[in-house]
Amino acid sequence: MAYKDEKLNEEKVFKDPVHRYVHIRDRVIWDLVGAPEFQRLRRVKQLGTSYLTFHGAEHSRFNHSLGVYEIVRRILHNFEDRPNWDSNERLLCLCAALLHDLGHGPFSHSFEKVFKLNHEDFTQEILLGDTTINTILSKVENGFPEKVADVINKTYHNKLVVSLISSQIDADRMDYLQRDAYFTGVSYGHFDMERILRVMRPMEDQVVIKESGMHAVEDYIMSRYQMYWQVYFHPVTRSAEVILSKILHRAKELHETGYEFALKPTHFLSFFTERPTLKEYLALDEAVAMYYFQIWMNEEDPILSDLCERFVNRRLFKYIEFNPNLQMNEWMELYRLFNKAGLNPDYYLVVDSSSDLPYDFYRPGEEEERLPIHLLMPNQELKELSRQSDIVESISGKKRTDHKLYFPLDRLKEMSNRSKTKKRILEILYG
Amino acid sequence: MAYKDEKLNEEKVFKDPVHRYVHIRDRVIWDLVGAPEFQRLRRVKQLGTSYLTFHGAEHSRFNHSLGVYEIVRRILHNFEDRPNWDSNERLLCLCAALLHDLGHGPFSHSFEKVFKLNHEDFTQEILLGDTTINTILSKVENGFPEKVADVINKTYHNKLVVSLISSQIDADRMDYLQRDAYFTGVSYGHFDMERILRVMRPMEDQVVIKESGMHAVEDYIMSRYQMYWQVYFHPVTRSAEVILSKILHRAKELHETGYEFALKPTHFLSFFTERPTLKEYLALDEAVAMYYFQIWMNEEDPILSDLCERFVNRRLFKYIEFNPNLQMNEWMELYRLFNKAGLNPDYYLVVDSSSDLPYDFYRPGEEEERLPIHLLMPNQELKELSRQSDIVESISGKKRTDHKLYFPLDRLKEMSNRSKTKKRILEILYG
Amino acid sequence: MAYKDEKLNEEKVFKDPVHRYVHIRDRVIWDLVGAPEFQRLRRVKQLGTSYLTFHGAEHSRFNHSLGVYEIVRRILHNFEDRPNWDSNERLLCLCAALLHDLGHGPFSHSFEKVFKLNHEDFTQEILLGDTTINTILSKVENGFPEKVADVINKTYHNKLVVSLISSQIDADRMDYLQRDAYFTGVSYGHFDMERILRVMRPMEDQVVIKESGMHAVEDYIMSRYQMYWQVYFHPVTRSAEVILSKILHRAKELHETGYEFALKPTHFLSFFTERPTLKEYLALDEAVAMYYFQIWMNEEDPILSDLCERFVNRRLFKYIEFNPNLQMNEWMELYRLFNKAGLNPDYYLVVDSSSDLPYDFYRPGEEEERLPIHLLMPNQELKELSRQSDIVESISGKKRTDHKLYFPLDRLKEMSNRSKTKKRILEILYG
Amino acid sequence: MAYKDEKLNEEKVFKDPVHRYVHIRDRVIWDLVGAPEFQRLRRVKQLGTSYLTFHGAEHSRFNHSLGVYEIVRRILHNFEDRPNWDSNERLLCLCAALLHDLGHGPFSHSFEKVFKLNHEDFTQEILLGDTTINTILSKVENGFPEKVADVINKTYHNKLVVSLISSQIDADRMDYLQRDAYFTGVSYGHFDMERILRVMRPMEDQVVIKESGMHAVEDYIMSRYQMYWQVYFHPVTRSAEVILSKILHRAKELHETGYEFALKPTHFLSFFTERPTLKEYLALDEAVAMYYFQIWMNEEDPILSDLCERFVNRRLFKYIEFNPNLQMNEWMELYRLFNKAGLNPDYYLVVDSSSDLPYDFYRPGEEEERLPIHLLMPNQELKELSRQSDIVESISGKKRTDHKLYFPLDRLKEMSNRSKTKKRILEILYG
Repeated sequence: MAYKDEKLNEEKVFKDPVHRYVHIRDRVIWDLVGAPEFQRLRRVKQLGTSYLTFHGAEHSRFNHSLGVYEIVRRILHNFEDRPNWDSNERLLCLCAALLHDLGHGPFSHSFEKVFKLNHEDFTQEILLGDTTINTILSKVENGFPEKVADVINKTYHNKLVVSLISSQIDADRMDYLQRDAYFTGVSYGHFDMERILRVMRPMEDQVVIKESGMHAVEDYIMSRYQMYWQVYFHPVTRSAEVILSKILHRAKELHETGYEFALKPTHFLSFFTERPTLKEYLALDEAVAMYYFQIWMNEEDPILSDLCERFVNRRLFKYIEFNPNLQMNEWMELYRLFNKAGLNPDYYLVVDSSSDLPYDFYRPGEEEERLPIHLLMPNQELKELSRQSDIVESISGKKRTDHKLYFPLDRLKEMSNRSKTKKRILEILYG
Repeated sequence: MAYKDEKLNEEKVFKDPVHRYVHIRDRVIWDLVGAPEFQRLRRVKQLGTSYLTFHGAEHSRFNHSLGVYEIVRRILHNFEDRPNWDSNERLLCLCAALLHDLGHGPFSHSFEKVFKLNHEDFTQEILLGDTTINTILSKVENGFPEKVADVINKTYHNKLVVSLISSQIDADRMDYLQRDAYFTGVSYGHFDMERILRVMRPMEDQVVIKESGMHAVEDYIMSRYQMYWQVYFHPVTRSAEVILSKILHRAKELHETGYEFALKPTHFLSFFTERPTLKEYLALDEAVAMYYFQIWMNEEDPILSDLCERFVNRRLFKYIEFNPNLQMNEWMELYRLFNKAGLNPDYYLVVDSSSDLPYDFYRPGEEEERLPIHLLMPNQELKELSRQSDIVESISGKKRTDHKLYFPLDRLKEMSNRSKTKKRILEILYG
Repeated sequence: MAYKDEKLNEEKVFKDPVHRYVHIRDRVIWDLVGAPEFQRLRRVKQLGTSYLTFHGAEHSRFNHSLGVYEIVRRILHNFEDRPNWDSNERLLCLCAALLHDLGHGPFSHSFEKVFKLNHEDFTQEILLGDTTINTILSKVENGFPEKVADVINKTYHNKLVVSLISSQIDADRMDYLQRDAYFTGVSYGHFDMERILRVMRPMEDQVVIKESGMHAVEDYIMSRYQMYWQVYFHPVTRSAEVILSKILHRAKELHETGYEFALKPTHFLSFFTERPTLKEYLALDEAVAMYYFQIWMNEEDPILSDLCERFVNRRLFKYIEFNPNLQMNEWMELYRLFNKAGLNPDYYLVVDSSSDLPYDFYRPGEEEERLPIHLLMPNQELKELSRQSDIVESISGKKRTDHKLYFPLDRLKEMSNRSKTKKRILEILYG
Repeated sequence: MAYKDEKLNEEKVFKDPVHRYVHIRDRVIWDLVGAPEFQRLRRVKQLGTSYLTFHGAEHSRFNHSLGVYEIVRRILHNFEDRPNWDSNERLLCLCAALLHDLGHGPFSHSFEKVFKLNHEDFTQEILLGDTTINTILSKVENGFPEKVADVINKTYHNKLVVSLISSQIDADRMDYLQRDAYFTGVSYGHFDMERILRVMRPMEDQVVIKESGMHAVEDYIMSRYQMYWQVYFHPVTRSAEVILSKILHRAKELHETGYEFALKPTHFLSFFTERPTLKEYLALDEAVAMYYFQIWMNEEDPILSDLCERFVNRRLFKYIEFNPNLQMNEWMELYRLFNKAGLNPDYYLVVDSSSDLPYDFYRPGEEEERLPIHLLMPNQELKELSRQSDIVESISGKKRTDHKLYFPLDRLKEMSNRSKTKKRILEILYG
């Protein structure tokens, strides 16, 4: 039997707290799960530093990847025998679902920003390079790794397949909303996925939703909105993120200025020059990163060691609402104050801004946008969701931005008491 | 106000997926949670290698410790104004609950066995030594750290206090059963804790259960039984444990025989001699351990590098039921077979035995036993649970043991085909 | 001890699927629950005819009333020792919470409309008239029944007390959203009540919400919105409601025109004249109503017997979107068609309209509105919710109305095939 | 297309709180659900008088019947393409599952005992008599109603089919344990049904369980055990049952002795003579029964009116442990005491005994037993469950019986104070 058609003797299941069970029958999927590049995802947390805010959020991207696979498996089970659905695309969809996050590194957000990396590039490299994953995919058929890469890259010709993995209501989002809600323990993030799966219909170039399922979709959109502001953009998580970024910046800066590390940061060297090879990239998982942060707690450089100690022992920065564009004078005052106290403001006085578009309808010409959600009306016409739903319309395309100023409160307290801005900050924090 | 009576301005809560919220009002508890020795528990998994079987089981001991604290807090809330309860013991109970697992190291089970360590000793050291935890506890009152240590050590004079933290139905067990069930996603581990808490009554030297709550307690005992065999003793987890132990053995052996590691295993050196200082012990968390296992994948020693590669990439040993005492001939045959194939049987042919006593009634003279569960009958007499419950009686004191043989199936397949035992093993595995 | 201060020897609990346990310590509450007028609520369904759409929705108002009591009990537990809270109002709040729905009759919606009754009047009568409930409340203190009546009637002088039972985010709504979601099984209706309770603060004349809890409140508002359109206004439920109303209309009409019922409808006579005494009102619960509907299936009048048979055996009317104001010609055509077929359009061609205001801010001069939700800002100012929340603002004060036409499809099919409107209706239904 | 093969245009689903959704594609099933005899099950509570103990337990047999159907549907979905499974039996299984409880009357337990009826006889009559159900089944194929009747009657030749509906681990039990747990809100009754369904294997004459699923089955058996003692045999429920039985007894006795009822009890007449026709049987549902109980509250006979008032207003009897065989003297004393107080002991002094066999292995010669559970061992042998599971063995075949004495405490208190037994009873109750 051809490798791509091979089934396991007996279905394998993984117990999953979110979807109850993850079911695997295809030999290809089983082999991919066992590949070292996939197992590595166990060593990368799904929510980065969020575990410092929500102690339950210690789950890994391995977890999530299996979940996305399982959702796509269920969708395709419902698609069997439906018009517009080509069952030859099944294995491709499953592989793309399973592997879509393969290139994520440790604490992706900060690492990518500081080292100017893009996890999507590494996903492509893992799929197409000299890896176990590539070897397995290549056995399926000629050009199969490229196909999987195209789906994940959204360049695959069959847009229906792409939309399963990447749209406003794809398996990726449906899994992470539920999973992150489960592990953090927040009561948001619930929606009737079983119903959504049942009202999904394959069309020529996208998955659409039967109009009768509109309310379930509204509920999903609202979940997303709540999860963004309650979990993903939580100010305490951002505080940890701020410190983490500053650690990486500092280490890089030290390296560039010829600082001698007590322990040579072998795993980081290629990151400092922003050109890690695939092998170097894969070697630096979160366990390794945490190892260095703990080692660096004993480095001589006071900034690096202090920041690392703060991160490892969770002595985070405090924050207040602050928009430097509107509060220029206070900003200047603080800057001077920190400088005077010998506390480099580049590392200890950080403005962070978050923004979210909970539901974007399609706007031609904007490349990065995901496919919008279309409802299939009883008369077989398609209608973009926000035209049919008041609630979605009301939040559609609205960008909400907030600005926060992060700083070490313990150090601020020690500074000159003559600063008005300092006084005001303490008032805000203590009332 | 005395430090021990200090309350936070506003109650702090942690979102907890198991108990919904963990509530903190005492300044002392808040400070303890922030101590580096407590934060370290985030870097030690609650279930060691179980995440390789149940991908959801990635939660840490930090998680669990907060949970135990919260349960004791709720119990004491119910105890207020009850006879036999001395509210002066409240803070002591809360501290002991929070800190009872403080000494756990990475993958405790294997590390303790191989390096002849005991996490309970380190808990005592952290409480009584030169640590932030000790500094905080000392501020409560003279001798307070010692009191906390005594409670955890079960030597505190007030046995009622001890029984909250350590008995057959203590806060520790109630938390971990529910928490481990939640994160693994298994459907066992549920019982009506709210009811159990409500029927708990403080007596002179122990917590007892009102007889009307007997069925809820039966349910708890059965949960424990199921969790042991379904989760804690899962044969795949034990396979990972086997490999892990062998890695540690091998590294130690190499060190003892003067092997030169490519990277000097600084963090391990004191473990190899079985005398880590507290500081050295605390420095070796799971991130650090994982760092070394990944480094060792590239060591020259084929056994160490192979075992590390297996552990990191989850290429585990397979297993069959096997009792070497009863199957001596087969054991000898396999031993020779492995030797002949150049595969050191000490590392690649491992028998592992598990056993559990789901509910132990008190047996005088046996020191290690936990306090049994007593029911408070309507006539105010106490009755040991197993005398009242058929179900508990039926499993009481029954030790169930199973023996499994672990080995690398991939390597076994390559060995001589003339071995009858090999043939039988393959038959068992493939039918 | 005064009756109002009497506690039960041992706390009583009811197992409740929504709040886990309902706790009772006050003798007064225990006695009220045992009163016949309260037990009667077991014979009135919480959601009227919804069980014909959602088969799980068979729960009674007894269920819900205990739930509202329990929520208020928890709120007041949090209020203890807070400024602005007068603990002397505790028992009053609990009684009002427990008894707020006491006057509900069978299938309230239809009965009240057809017989021009108001359950709130009967609640007042039960509280103040010659009932067991009144006897119990009178024992608390002079004028206590009147106080309870005032709170439920929203005329009590302490508006803080009123707002607990009746506002945009009162215990009534919080219970029914969760309870109705639980019993129907829909995935809407979940919100983090524990958090909302924790951020509630008593102010002089209302309960307000700490601003940090805004997102939990948004979630509650969205739950309400979803429950309205997914459950409460479900078109199939409205179909059952339509038939039920028409049964009551017909019976009344028959009575008024001197029709001789085979069995004298004793329980209904005073309803037909719209003047039931309290005793008569209480005697007609849902079991009694269902008894009559089954008896009436055998009445000679073809309309009454047909409608009863449809209701009892759930042979409901079908529906299409239809607005008679905009579709006057079609309306006329159908009217003629039904008349010609000998099917009285007053009973078989029914337009039903629903509308909802998911969140109303206060508009002076409109009496019926509930109190709006105010957020307590960090600077201690109050802000009306919709001014702070984009989402709430977007749906605030927006009335959504829909119109549906209900009719017996089986009968329509038998009618003349020349009707264009008939054709169109069948097309809509069958595509 | 043949009626039996007809599919609905679009799958219909019912929202179900226990199984999330109930799925219907077969026209036959859809038609059966709509039949009046099936809709009648909405007016018969699943747990009879349990709602007087657990206020959530107001769910109907309609609810449960859909659930059993859904479970069998899922089992058969898993059976597709398995050896030993004949897909021609599919529709038969689904119909038998849906209809197995069709003959249940109001408060089955009491009605059947007092009026010497058997709901199983009526199930057979509904299936085979002049009913809508029979008309629908007859359209499937000649003799189909008889086949369904045989499956439910356990006389069908294919024992595999029978075992799905009626064995120690059938769809009936799996549904009611979960459903009754859900609606009562107790924390028992949970087990991993999804796993059990996945390890079920069809064999020639029964469904067996793969040995790897043994622990899930143990959990199910323990759930059953807990539900029996915590819910089904709850002493308060039995108190309501006692009063209900006595009401029926009294009404029958009055009728037999020529008593003139104020309202002729038309619906009951044929029950009093123990020969209701099918039509008469079906007409007396729980709404009708409750109607009569409320009417009878005003009957002249003091026993009937008192008992009805107690039942309707939930003024139940109290109870103590009591075994008249062992406590003959006390029994005699009480009997005299009640007689002397003018309180007929036949109605007011009632001993009730409950017993359960949580898991019965097959014992030849005992006809009533359900099929035992067999495990399918890795070597393809079958082993009876209790031989493999310690826990099941420990409770296997053990009958637990308890005896309780029920009486009106309010009346007992008024009786002569010289009775020692009275004193003892009050002591037991008040301590």
